[in-house]
Amino acid sequence: MTSSKDLTAGGASRIVISVDAMGGDRGPATVVAGIADSAKKNPDIAFILHGPEAELRPLVEKRRELDGRVTLRDATGVVSMEDKPSQVLRTGKDTSMWSAVDSVRDKEATVAVSCGNTGALMALSMIRLRKLPGVNRPAIAILWPSRNPQGFNVMLDVGADIRADAQDLLQYALMGTSYARNGLDLDRPRIGLLNVGTEEHKGRAELKEAHDLIAAHAEQSNFDFVGFVEGGDIPGDRCDVIVTDGFTGNVALKTGEGTASLIGDLLKEAFAYSPLSRIASLLALTSLTRLKKRIDPRRVNGGVFLGLNGTVVKSHGSADATGVSAAVKLAFQLAQSGFGERLAARVAQSLEKTDT
Amino acid sequence: MTSSKDLTAGGASRIVISVDAMGGDRGPATVVAGIADSAKKNPDIAFILHGPEAELRPLVEKRRELDGRVTLRDATGVVSMEDKPSQVLRTGKDTSMWSAVDSVRDKEATVAVSCGNTGALMALSMIRLRKLPGVNRPAIAILWPSRNPQGFNVMLDVGADIRADAQDLLQYALMGTSYARNGLDLDRPRIGLLNVGTEEHKGRAELKEAHDLIAAHAEQSNFDFVGFVEGGDIPGDRCDVIVTDGFTGNVALKTGEGTASLIGDLLKEAFAYSPLSRIASLLALTSLTRLKKRIDPRRVNGGVFLGLNGTVVKSHGSADATGVSAAVKLAFQLAQSGFGERLAARVAQSLEKTDT
Repeated sequence: MTSSKDLTAGGASRIVISVDAMGGDRGPATVVAGIADSAKKNPDIAFILHGPEAELRPLVEKRRELDGRVTLRDATGVVSMEDKPSQVLRTGKDTSMWSAVDSVRDKEATVAVSCGNTGALMALSMIRLRKLPGVNRPAIAILWPSRNPQGFNVMLDVGADIRADAQDLLQYALMGTSYARNGLDLDRPRIGLLNVGTEEHKGRAELKEAHDLIAAHAEQSNFDFVGFVEGGDIPGDRCDVIVTDGFTGNVALKTGEGTASLIGDLLKEAFAYSPLSRIASLLALTSLTRLKKRIDPRRVNGGVFLGLNGTVVKSHGSADATGVSAAVKLAFQLAQSGFGERLAARVAQSLEKTDT
Repeated sequence: MTSSKDLTAGGASRIVISVDAMGGDRGPATVVAGIADSAKKNPDIAFILHGPEAELRPLVEKRRELDGRVTLRDATGVVSMEDKPSQVLRTGKDTSMWSAVDSVRDKEATVAVSCGNTGALMALSMIRLRKLPGVNRPAIAILWPSRNPQGFNVMLDVGADIRADAQDLLQYALMGTSYARNGLDLDRPRIGLLNVGTEEHKGRAELKEAHDLIAAHAEQSNFDFVGFVEGGDIPGDRCDVIVTDGFTGNVALKTGEGTASLIGDLLKEAFAYSPLSRIASLLALTSLTRLKKRIDPRRVNGGVFLGLNGTVVKSHGSADATGVSAAVKLAFQLAQSGFGERLAARVAQSLEKTDT
C-alpha cells in the first residue's frame, strides 16, 4: 500500500490527506477555502480535517465541492505561533495539530498538512511518527525557483535542526534525491553540497568529509554528485538538490525570500512612479503576471519534513487559499507517488552499504 | 594624520588611493577607465597604480583626466583567480597585488583597491598589514540594498574566515559600527546578530554567548543592539549592520545575489515576451532604470577588509569601469573620514573594557 484510500465517500478510491485546519495566520476559513480549491481541481483527493467541529462544520457545509470529501475530526485545542515546542509536547494532546499528525501515524492518511508553528509541528512529528531507521536528524526540504528546466531546485535542511555532521548530510543527499524524483520527476537528480567555494580544499572539515561520503554513494543511489556549490547555485542550474545544514539553509532561504520581496516592492514603486510607467505596467500586465506566477512563493508553498515514518507538509503560516491549495497539491503528489516508502527504502539501502 | 597626501601633483593636497591594475576579469584597461571616471568626478583624489609599467603607461596617458594624478609603480607579476593564497604568499613578491597592499603598509596610501583573487588578497593583507591588536579574525564587510532610509545595510563577515566565536562576533559588531558610521553616516547604528529565529533561546551556543557579549558593549560603544535577526532582515529595516560568521555570510550574500540576478533575467524575458510588453518596457524605461540603479551591484561594489592596520577594498573580479569607480569612491570616503584610525581606536577601547 503506497497510500491511504477513502472508500467511504461514494465508493471512490481517493487519496486521503490529513489537514490541520487551525494555527494558520488567516484562520480555518482560509484553510477550508484552500482544500475546497483542491477538491474542485482533483477528483481523487479526500480529507480528514482536524479542528473544533462546531467551528469547522458550517465552513465545510458551505462548500459544495467538499460534499462527501471531508471527514471531520474534532480537536478543540489550538497550537499558537508563540507556543514552545516542549510545551506543546507536554500539553498539546487535544490540539488539531497533534490530531492531524496522528492520522498519519494511524495510517488513516498518507500525508499531513499544517500551516501552524514550525517548531511545534517538527517536534510533534518527531515524537508521534518517529525517525526512520538510520536517520539521525530529519530535515525540512523546500522548493526554490531556479534556472533549471523543471523551474525549481530542492534545498534541505532549511531549519529542522541547527547543525549536521557528515553522516547527516549524506542522509539529506539521499532524502533530497527521493524528493527530487517524486516531487520534480527527475530520474537522476544532480546533488550539490553547499560551501563557500567550489574548490575541494575549501570550507569546514565536516564538509570535506561529507563531500567524500556523498561522492561514494552516488553510483549506488542513482544520483549525480556535482561536488561543492555556492549560494548563487541555489537559484541556479548547476544542480537540482542543494544539501546543507539547517542553520545555513534557513538563513539562505530567508535571505532569498527577503531579497525577492524587496525587489518586488521596488518594482511596484517603479511602476507607480509616473503616468507613463502606470500605462506601461498595464501593457506589460500579462508578462508580469507570468513572471509573478513563476516566482510566487504561494505556488511552491510547503516545506516537507523528511526522515520520519510518514510525510508532513508545512505550509506558510501566512498562506492564503491559493497557498493552502498548493501545499495540498504537493501532499497529494507525494502520497500518490508512494514517496514515503521509496524514501525509506533508499535510506535502508544506503545503511546496508555503509554496514558492509 | 588620517590619510596620505600627495603633494607632488601640482601642489594639491589629495587623498592617495593605491590601486592594483591587474587581476580583474576585464584587464587593466577597465581599471584605468574606472579610476579615470573617479578622477574626473573628484578633484581631491590621486592614485598609485600598480602593474607592468610598459602596459599601464599608454593606458594612463590616453586619459587626460589622469594627467598629474597617477604615480605608476612597476610590478610585472600578476595574481590570477586560480592562484592559491599560500602560493601567492611564497612567490608573489613581484605582483601588482603585493605592491598595492605594500603602499598602504608603507603609508604612501591610506586604502588599497583590487579586483583580484579574494583569498590571495586577504592572505596578503593579513601578512603585510597585520591584524589590529585585539582582533583575532579580520572580516570582509559588504553593503547590501535594504529597506532602510540609507538604502543599504552592512553585513560582515562575508568570507574572510569560515568560522567565528563569540569574541570574534563582538569584534565584528564593533568594526561594523565603525563602518556604518564612516561609510553610511549613521551616528548610532543598530546591530543585529544573524540567527535562525529571533527568540533568545534559539540557535547555536556560541550565538547565545555572542548575544550577551554584544549587548554588554552597546552602551559604551555607542550602538543599539536589536538582538537576533533572521535572513529576511539582511535586506530589511530592523537593523543597519548584520553580524555573522564568514561561512553563513558568504552563503547569504551569494544566495541574495543569485536570486536578484534570476529575477532580473526573468524580468527581461517578461518584457521581451510580446510586442505589447516591449512597448511597455520602453514606457517604463525611466522607472526601471531608477530601480536598476537602486539595486545595481556595481554601485555598491566593494567588500572592505576590516581589522587590519590599513584598509583594503576588494572590488568584484568582473567589475567594469563603473564598478571600479564605485570601489574607488568607497575607498576615498573611508580614507577621508579617517576610518582606519577610528576603527582601531574603537577596538582598542573595547579591549580596555574587557580587560578591566
